[in-house]
Amino acid sequence: MLATPTQTLNLTDMGKRARAASYALAALTTVQKNAALLTIADLLEQETPAILAANQLDLDAAYANGTDSIWIRDRLDLAKRMPGIIADVRKVAELPDPVGEEFAQRTLENGLLVKKRRVPLGVIGTIYESRPNVTVDIATLALKTGNATILRGGSDVLNTNLELVRVLQLALEQHHIPADSIQYIASTDRQYVLEMLKLHHYIDMIIPRGGNSLHNFCRENSTIPVIIGGIGICHLFVDASANLDASLPVIHNAKTQRPAVCNALDTLLVHEKIAAEFLPRVVENLGKDSVVFKADPAALKLLDDDRVTLAGNDDFDIEWMGLTLGIKVVSGVEDAIDHIRQHSTQHSDGILTEDSHNAEIFLNAVDSAAVYINASTRFTDGSALGLGAEVAISTQKLHARGPMALEELTTYKWLVTGDYTARA
Amino acid sequence: MLATPTQTLNLTDMGKRARAASYALAALTTVQKNAALLTIADLLEQETPAILAANQLDLDAAYANGTDSIWIRDRLDLAKRMPGIIADVRKVAELPDPVGEEFAQRTLENGLLVKKRRVPLGVIGTIYESRPNVTVDIATLALKTGNATILRGGSDVLNTNLELVRVLQLALEQHHIPADSIQYIASTDRQYVLEMLKLHHYIDMIIPRGGNSLHNFCRENSTIPVIIGGIGICHLFVDASANLDASLPVIHNAKTQRPAVCNALDTLLVHEKIAAEFLPRVVENLGKDSVVFKADPAALKLLDDDRVTLAGNDDFDIEWMGLTLGIKVVSGVEDAIDHIRQHSTQHSDGILTEDSHNAEIFLNAVDSAAVYINASTRFTDGSALGLGAEVAISTQKLHARGPMALEELTTYKWLVTGDYTARA
Repeated sequence: MLATPTQTLNLTDMGKRARAASYALAALTTVQKNAALLTIADLLEQETPAILAANQLDLDAAYANGTDSIWIRDRLDLAKRMPGIIADVRKVAELPDPVGEEFAQRTLENGLLVKKRRVPLGVIGTIYESRPNVTVDIATLALKTGNATILRGGSDVLNTNLELVRVLQLALEQHHIPADSIQYIASTDRQYVLEMLKLHHYIDMIIPRGGNSLHNFCRENSTIPVIIGGIGICHLFVDASANLDASLPVIHNAKTQRPAVCNALDTLLVHEKIAAEFLPRVVENLGKDSVVFKADPAALKLLDDDRVTLAGNDDFDIEWMGLTLGIKVVSGVEDAIDHIRQHSTQHSDGILTEDSHNAEIFLNAVDSAAVYINASTRFTDGSALGLGAEVAISTQKLHARGPMALEELTTYKWLVTGDYTARA
Repeated sequence: MLATPTQTLNLTDMGKRARAASYALAALTTVQKNAALLTIADLLEQETPAILAANQLDLDAAYANGTDSIWIRDRLDLAKRMPGIIADVRKVAELPDPVGEEFAQRTLENGLLVKKRRVPLGVIGTIYESRPNVTVDIATLALKTGNATILRGGSDVLNTNLELVRVLQLALEQHHIPADSIQYIASTDRQYVLEMLKLHHYIDMIIPRGGNSLHNFCRENSTIPVIIGGIGICHLFVDASANLDASLPVIHNAKTQRPAVCNALDTLLVHEKIAAEFLPRVVENLGKDSVVFKADPAALKLLDDDRVTLAGNDDFDIEWMGLTLGIKVVSGVEDAIDHIRQHSTQHSDGILTEDSHNAEIFLNAVDSAAVYINASTRFTDGSALGLGAEVAISTQKLHARGPMALEELTTYKWLVTGDYTARA
């Protein structure tokens, strides 16, 4: 078994080294960064046996601990994933580099030339769970945008992640890029997460990738800006005017295509005028694919079906992450908006309607990262919306909202050029 | 004397009411918002006697407490300020409204129409000190961008602020806009600041306007995103190639034009090749306007002058906010960059040079909100850079960097329209 590092870590020192590396990264050209990315892909290919051997240690430990085997295969196991991970790295190399773009240029009356230039954020801290593909994902997207990263992945894949970082750093060294550009907190001690969250002198942004409790922990303890997101209690409202035949497959898709992800449907709101006709069809259509339903009293009255039970008090505040769907009858678009304002996590919410006036009301009033008309909520992610990549889905409102891709890993600086110009 | 409110405040309730008001604000048209702003200006004019009477109570209390009278006149006293404040409100009404702008539109292969629309942030919390003009400033800029505000100003101007908020709310009511759009924490108890900083369900952004300790307090205690900023340890580096005659007035301007503001010069770095010639001229030129100097040993050796003393260990980490200037001899542009990386607060830093290569090196390497070539650092503010307004100067890197104006009080949402489109 690989040794699990036990030495005391100095997080401040890691932060300082990341900051120093970030200066070197910011000076790289796009060509240099892409060359390093392609070497990462090549080395991940070449080192796949070593990576899978380290991964096997983590899998063995997980099975020995009695971890659910579906969970293990879905999250921890890299065996079938390596080609996809490697292909993704090559794709990142092909994406346009947002760094260096200049914009908002103008000349002021006093002759000052003012413009903004897009620059890397600096150092990005990422805290994530299980899935070791996130290690490569974040590290390569950060490299593409000239950012250093400090990574802290799940304890259950420490061996895998250390091996991946070894390969990533090997590639950096071949291109004379500081290995400190990609650092990993090689400890399962949660105390180091807390220390990391206080390093505001050295880390510019924290991306948590995980559940509610991780996000709350970061929000409550971080002195660094945190991208809160990835928790989606998502709604679709079926208006009285909706094409019901066409709505069924959209609802089916939103609920069942990948039920354990954040953009999956959680609550279906149905206009009272069509509820008696439509709700039994929803139960029939989704029920045959094992969906069960939590209904409000009005919906329950319309449905005599074993798969439908009365929704509890908090059931409309649950992100189901599985084959359960909340259903509720509402009196119209305003009532639907009220429900969404009260229960949504401002991730993805939509309306199914033929009434463009209601669509516009819904679009304006629902304050979510992504608002849909006649489409599945499943589209809220970087690749589905055509961004080519994704580091997180933000549900807070500062910096970036919804899917975050390369541009969201940058900031800008103001460049001001004068002729020995003083302020009047 | 006006009664200082003593009832217990319910911050959660204030937050809920602000959130509800924000929905109404987001639905206002630009015409409606501008009309309300003009009424605010009219009522501030009409109510000036009542506002100044309330202000007098605060001034009397400040004088009675033995507060420095220059401080009182500079920060607390509104007597001469009302016309300027009112004119600024009318100017805000004239600025373009960023809300509603649509951008980044495209149609995906599956027919989905995707775009982003600029929308208000929602609810903005502001914590500020003394200067009661900030009350009107923030409230009107927030109104212009469709945001609700919760304000907490300095204890020493509570009477003034309550009277200003009364007038602001009166104007809102005349336009049937909820008075809860502009709320004030009517207590001097700091416990309420702490409570406010935890209201992440109801407040979307915190803007602290004050010194280092306020910013640190917010950073450490807030679960809401905080705009850290307004602290500027600003540098100018005089390169060997600089036009020295032309440099002197720029340095004089940066240091003395308004020494107590964040974009004033704190440290002058001088290339060793010109230090012996140039430093005595700096001391002469700025010294005649009462500037005193803290010099590193190399600079001190070149200067035999009572106004120059040896810089202490931490003197290059002080934002002077007055007529003191740090001076240091450096070996060249790289040495200057190293010093700035170590001591700058990433606010405003510049180079004076005739060497375009060195200018480019400096521009690329200095990671500050605003980087200057041959200009005074004093230009880093909203009005000087042509933004027409300013709510804060951000020195962190998320969301906005440098001067923040109207657009920086907005976010966007993704609007996705399909034809009952499901994800493949």
